[in-house]
Amino acid sequence: MRDQAVRAIAECRRIAAMSEEPGRTTRRFLTPPMRDVHALLRRRMETMGMTVSIDEAGNLHGLWRPANARGKRLMMGSHVDTVPDAGAFDGVLGVTLALEWAEVARNLELPLAIEVIAFSDEEGVRYGVPFLGSRAVAGCFDLDLFSREDADGVRMDDAMRAFELDPAKIGEAALGDDVLGYVELHIEQGPVLETENLSVAAVSAITGQTRINLSFSGQANHAGTTPMHLRRDALAAAAEWIIAVEALAQRTDGLVATVGKISVEPNASNVVPGGAKFSLDVRHASDGQRASSVERLLAEARAITGRRGIGFEYAIQMDQPAVPMDGHLTSLLTEAIEAAELHLKIMPSGAGHDAMVMASRVPAAMLFLRSPGGISHHPAENVLEADVEDALRVGREFLRRIAKEIDIG
Amino acid sequence: MRDQAVRAIAECRRIAAMSEEPGRTTRRFLTPPMRDVHALLRRRMETMGMTVSIDEAGNLHGLWRPANARGKRLMMGSHVDTVPDAGAFDGVLGVTLALEWAEVARNLELPLAIEVIAFSDEEGVRYGVPFLGSRAVAGCFDLDLFSREDADGVRMDDAMRAFELDPAKIGEAALGDDVLGYVELHIEQGPVLETENLSVAAVSAITGQTRINLSFSGQANHAGTTPMHLRRDALAAAAEWIIAVEALAQRTDGLVATVGKISVEPNASNVVPGGAKFSLDVRHASDGQRASSVERLLAEARAITGRRGIGFEYAIQMDQPAVPMDGHLTSLLTEAIEAAELHLKIMPSGAGHDAMVMASRVPAAMLFLRSPGGISHHPAENVLEADVEDALRVGREFLRRIAKEIDIG
Repeated sequence: MRDQAVRAIAECRRIAAMSEEPGRTTRRFLTPPMRDVHALLRRRMETMGMTVSIDEAGNLHGLWRPANARGKRLMMGSHVDTVPDAGAFDGVLGVTLALEWAEVARNLELPLAIEVIAFSDEEGVRYGVPFLGSRAVAGCFDLDLFSREDADGVRMDDAMRAFELDPAKIGEAALGDDVLGYVELHIEQGPVLETENLSVAAVSAITGQTRINLSFSGQANHAGTTPMHLRRDALAAAAEWIIAVEALAQRTDGLVATVGKISVEPNASNVVPGGAKFSLDVRHASDGQRASSVERLLAEARAITGRRGIGFEYAIQMDQPAVPMDGHLTSLLTEAIEAAELHLKIMPSGAGHDAMVMASRVPAAMLFLRSPGGISHHPAENVLEADVEDALRVGREFLRRIAKEIDIG
Repeated sequence: MRDQAVRAIAECRRIAAMSEEPGRTTRRFLTPPMRDVHALLRRRMETMGMTVSIDEAGNLHGLWRPANARGKRLMMGSHVDTVPDAGAFDGVLGVTLALEWAEVARNLELPLAIEVIAFSDEEGVRYGVPFLGSRAVAGCFDLDLFSREDADGVRMDDAMRAFELDPAKIGEAALGDDVLGYVELHIEQGPVLETENLSVAAVSAITGQTRINLSFSGQANHAGTTPMHLRRDALAAAAEWIIAVEALAQRTDGLVATVGKISVEPNASNVVPGGAKFSLDVRHASDGQRASSVERLLAEARAITGRRGIGFEYAIQMDQPAVPMDGHLTSLLTEAIEAAELHLKIMPSGAGHDAMVMASRVPAAMLFLRSPGGISHHPAENVLEADVEDALRVGREFLRRIAKEIDIG
């Protein structure tokens, strides 16, 4: 399977050169380099004997239906859009590796219809809303999104027409009842597998996520003439709270909590900060644990600002429940991992993925591959050839088991 | 003295209307509204019988030398430039009040020559360097400053020529040996007098000041996929240090320490901050205490970043020693405060003032007036009429004592 691993990686590298910007990889929803990606994947799919189509949301589909195929088809894939200045593997590897899994199924002559899908938008960079591709396929695309404009003032529906898509027909991208499930292969985008020296893991759930914007209002004052006991320093209050956020997450199993964004007013070295605005991102596989953690942190903010005579406001930007992966598909995946003689690791995904959206429509499962250095969304993003081989061996075992069920089913 | 207080305040309000910007007070070094201020003050000075001149740094001088005057002259004043969107009193009150002190001296027929000076630049807004006016008078104006450009690309020496000044002659603005001292009247720009319910205070020293830029470098990571124990969060480290800064200043008498400025990289709500840059401003009337405090805070930063596996760099931007006010002039001022039956308060100034620069050339002293709300550098900046009256009564006592010394001297 070495050759297949090498090919899957090489294809990612080729696709990374298809970019809106010279010298770095940036490929947003329905931009010209996405046509190039489609052309490359179409050639490959057609070579494999697949039937290729592009739906009205700009997702590329390659359908492999062998003569002996029975029952519903299995979908596999990921997305081919990127963040600005991206790496080569986030999303794209899930497509090139799905094509290799399909090769494996073909070589094994499994009686299994497989559809490889390359979603047109997962990152949401162009229109500020992620998962445009999988939303359309899952049948939950909000038509209000059409009027959104990108940074150049191009409306989404106009961008679709320019890509030769018909926005009025986007409903036709939605799946019918003839899909048995969706499996996504994706780099972990975190350091867990590397730290534990593992190549792959089955994903148990996409963690729920709360995003809150907070604002502390104190009093801007001259840094030289205002004694400490007469200050109402918004940044000092924020600092006290940031430490409390970190401490709670450190002592709560599976919780991650992050203050990633901060700005202060007036932001001058000789003025006591009068205002501080900052973000909170909280994630946990358990919605109850996440909710109670958020509540504790808001109570802590109230206590700190109350004690310091500082105003406190917040606005919840996102409160997204956890999405568990399908139990049966995931158990086939864990069986496959063990059959491939790999250590069985099951972990939640702290990042959102197309599988999260697809799970609202069909059984969904995910396989993670180690991210060297935990790096993603960065040109240094990488994947190890041996890990891709492991993922191919897991695929062989998984596809055999799926096919067997169809045979029995 | 009520009428004099009312007049001094009214004149500040009139001058506040002389601005580069409609609707708000902004008056930088050698801009057109400064000509208007000069015209207004010149009329007033000439009415009082003063000899008026403008030196080559754009400072306005009004010299009152009565027939019975003996010995060296006393200088009094402050600056007439402002920060953007300023209040009416910072600097300007020190000039209008000095004119009232001169009126008092005239009415008492004291044998005292008085020169009221309106410095052309203290805030340093136009050329990024403060104290241009007093530097020239104190004879420490750096000629390299001439090549500096303002935001519109106008060189300082060109701005001087446009104001009908001759940069080549700036040396002539420097004082000779015929000045017995400089007294500056200024709003406190802080909340101490208001908190203690006092109208005025003698200033013991301009505190020394250290400004440092700090930079913590951790590792930017995905906020969802990076477990807490694998993070190197630059903002969390900065927060821990900011709390340590506050705590040290709170427990060290007379110390103020401020983190006024902060930015993080990449500053995204879903990314663990990889870098944090922030400022430190430390002031204390004792240089030794300031130096040891800075040392402790840098050691604390080393400890925090070391424990967290984070890189730490810093650059000292300013390390300015404290400038004590002249002992003898200040003792005359404190005698005057007590003779005026006011509570004697002596305090350091946490902000820089022209008196700090003048102290390098002549004995200098300062009298603070209460800042309601501790507010300055803001349109809401204010001064109480009764406090100005108190300052006038202090002036009467102070000028009598100075004149008596001249008589004896």
